Amino acid sequence: MKIYAQTLKRKIINIFKKHNLDHKHSKISAEAIIKAELVGAPSHGITRVKMYCERLKRKLINNNPKIKIKEITKSVSLVDGDNSIGFVAGDIAIKQAIKNAKSTGIGIVAVKNSGHYGLSSFFAEQAVKRNMLVFCFTNAPPALAPHGAIKKLFGTNPICFGSPTGSKIPFILDTSVSVTNRGKIRFAAKLGKKISKNAALDKYGNPTTDANKALAGVQLPIAGFRGSGLAWMVDILSGVLTGANHGGKVKDPFDDFSGPQNIGHLFITLKSNLFLKNYNQRIKQNIKRVKKLPKIKGVKEIMYPGQSKYRRYKKNMNKTINIPNEILKDLNHL
Amino acid sequence: MKIYAQTLKRKIINIFKKHNLDHKHSKISAEAIIKAELVGAPSHGITRVKMYCERLKRKLINNNPKIKIKEITKSVSLVDGDNSIGFVAGDIAIKQAIKNAKSTGIGIVAVKNSGHYGLSSFFAEQAVKRNMLVFCFTNAPPALAPHGAIKKLFGTNPICFGSPTGSKIPFILDTSVSVTNRGKIRFAAKLGKKISKNAALDKYGNPTTDANKALAGVQLPIAGFRGSGLAWMVDILSGVLTGANHGGKVKDPFDDFSGPQNIGHLFITLKSNLFLKNYNQRIKQNIKRVKKLPKIKGVKEIMYPGQSKYRRYKKNMNKTINIPNEILKDLNHL
Repeated sequence: MKIYAQTLKRKIINIFKKHNLDHKHSKISAEAIIKAELVGAPSHGITRVKMYCERLKRKLINNNPKIKIKEITKSVSLVDGDNSIGFVAGDIAIKQAIKNAKSTGIGIVAVKNSGHYGLSSFFAEQAVKRNMLVFCFTNAPPALAPHGAIKKLFGTNPICFGSPTGSKIPFILDTSVSVTNRGKIRFAAKLGKKISKNAALDKYGNPTTDANKALAGVQLPIAGFRGSGLAWMVDILSGVLTGANHGGKVKDPFDDFSGPQNIGHLFITLKSNLFLKNYNQRIKQNIKRVKKLPKIKGVKEIMYPGQSKYRRYKKNMNKTINIPNEILKDLNHL
Repeated sequence: MKIYAQTLKRKIINIFKKHNLDHKHSKISAEAIIKAELVGAPSHGITRVKMYCERLKRKLINNNPKIKIKEITKSVSLVDGDNSIGFVAGDIAIKQAIKNAKSTGIGIVAVKNSGHYGLSSFFAEQAVKRNMLVFCFTNAPPALAPHGAIKKLFGTNPICFGSPTGSKIPFILDTSVSVTNRGKIRFAAKLGKKISKNAALDKYGNPTTDANKALAGVQLPIAGFRGSGLAWMVDILSGVLTGANHGGKVKDPFDDFSGPQNIGHLFITLKSNLFLKNYNQRIKQNIKRVKKLPKIKGVKEIMYPGQSKYRRYKKNMNKTINIPNEILKDLNHL
């Protein structure tokens, strides 16, 4: 069924409010979910609403969290999310990282006791809009087998980096270190679609394109040892350093109801003019040089990370969103 | 020919001194070069000595640099390498980053007007030994085609991350974002060996395993758009942000004698106990969990990044190094 983004947003706000989330938290969460749909990342969109509600119902997401911000230095803060919905702890933390960087040039904010916070890129965007470079790291439930192992332990642990571009479209790289992101596999499973080759093994260690078998088995990291090492790095930064769960202990929000997820995040923000005055001019030139390279046949334009998502967002924001009937049924039920 | 590491180090120190590098700079450089041999990364070892000397002779590497350290805040510094040999600018900068983190918990040090500095992991090691987490970024001469382009522009731009482990062997991920690192391809070309499939295209855009054709063509990033985006991120952090060359303008040290390289680096250091007191205990537990996973048939032990290199170093440090005759001839000539 097709439905306008604004209508859908109101619907989701109401669903969250029915689950005792206050208006502000419901709004922050609904906005992130709708935006994921609009940028073309439905795996982080409305398909997750049912899961969030289930965890709210079971009090595994705290609908009335006492989120604490501890000032360690003027640049460094630690946020204890008190098991709030991840969107909210993430939002408070990135705002703190921006504040710290405004005052000292740099901000480093760790978050513990948080949950799945959607797309890292939305947090990165907030910092980039204030002329900052930014890293966002988060860990996630076990999905990837470390290099050499046949059992999953690391999450798909995205690396997200953002930079101003001197134009209104930010540079935002937001890449999981798995061949395919887990949300996409879940989405494929929900719709009965196949996943790409080389993305996963079934539980016996055989390659599979069946989304359900992949979910029961292990996903593969990009580039073998390299991707496995990057996933490990993100787990250390988000989990070991912050006080959150790590080393395979982050709970799967969809099927582990034994306790809160306790995901960790780490945000690093840097003023773009920390070392020189003409950052925007330099990054513009950098992008221009890449864009004017000779292209592979069939490629019209070399895009920088974040550019396609931004264009899809602008194109889709006043249009209707197509919701699979399966998922609409869930929403109406909620 | 086989030669003891210590003997070879003295030989290289003397070669550099003959090229008017002072004793201290010669020693820092020779140590990094020998260590690359000992950890099993000969692509960053003695095969490069001739190139460094050629650039010293042509005054493209400054043998008497006035390296400046600008204090921006107690946490943030900018190093102007004055076209010193990269090892030296890098060494000064990582020591500054460690000093900053000791005093404020975090250090961010940018470097401009530097050159090829060898393996990032040696800089990371210095910080990890002082109980810090660390990122080292550096850009490099054009080698990789951005996703969608048929011409090289990004360097192999390594991502290096280090963490204490609670044991004497540090966790150090040091991974280029190319399928194969450029040094390895150069080394293969020198010895007339083939390179692995899928690592490069020749100048006509066809896959090749011929090292010389690969050097004339383009190398491929890991994981397509993702690897390309990571290479771009490293170029922004090392080049655009710092004031160094970027966007394909870093000069190739082997065959571009039109000026200094002006490579840029960025080091970020964080005290490991910034957010909690038991970091070492937590990281130990993290590594233990990964290590005890069931393994792929034939894998004896799951290794963390840096572990194999460390073991090779310990094993090789008192043994002889095997130098290809080709390279020995070059050294004797110098």
